[in-house]
Amino acid sequence: MCEANAYLLKDGKELLFMESVDVLEDEGSQIRVQSIFGEQKVVKARIRSMSLVEHKIVLEERT
Amino acid sequence: MCEANAYLLKDGKELLFMESVDVLEDEGSQIRVQSIFGEQKVVKARIRSMSLVEHKIVLEERT
Repeated sequence: MCEANAYLLKDGKELLFMESVDVLEDEGSQIRVQSIFGEQKVVKARIRSMSLVEHKIVLEERT
Repeated sequence: MCEANAYLLKDGKELLFMESVDVLEDEGSQIRVQSIFGEQKVVKARIRSMSLVEHKIVLEERT
């Protein structure tokens, strides 16, 4: 499977935000994150970086 | 492999921007996109959405 883990960068630390992420959607000031299992979370952040080969997404908290 | 194709949303149309994308990096006003082959492009855009299961990333041109 090609899902990735999403981490939230907060105060310089990467905290695991959601595993097995399928969909990311930038809705302006917030990001909607959805896992392959249908779990959804919304976070006030921006997409900072990702590596699909490393299965890693980094979101940065908006202050 | 878990790479995805990146499309650039421009005037309401999705144009293929890069195939086999590995890394996306938000550098502020521009996005750095890198393929699994090491090809790199920089575009004045934001990451609009992605679905890893569908292997699809949509970038939106900044005007």
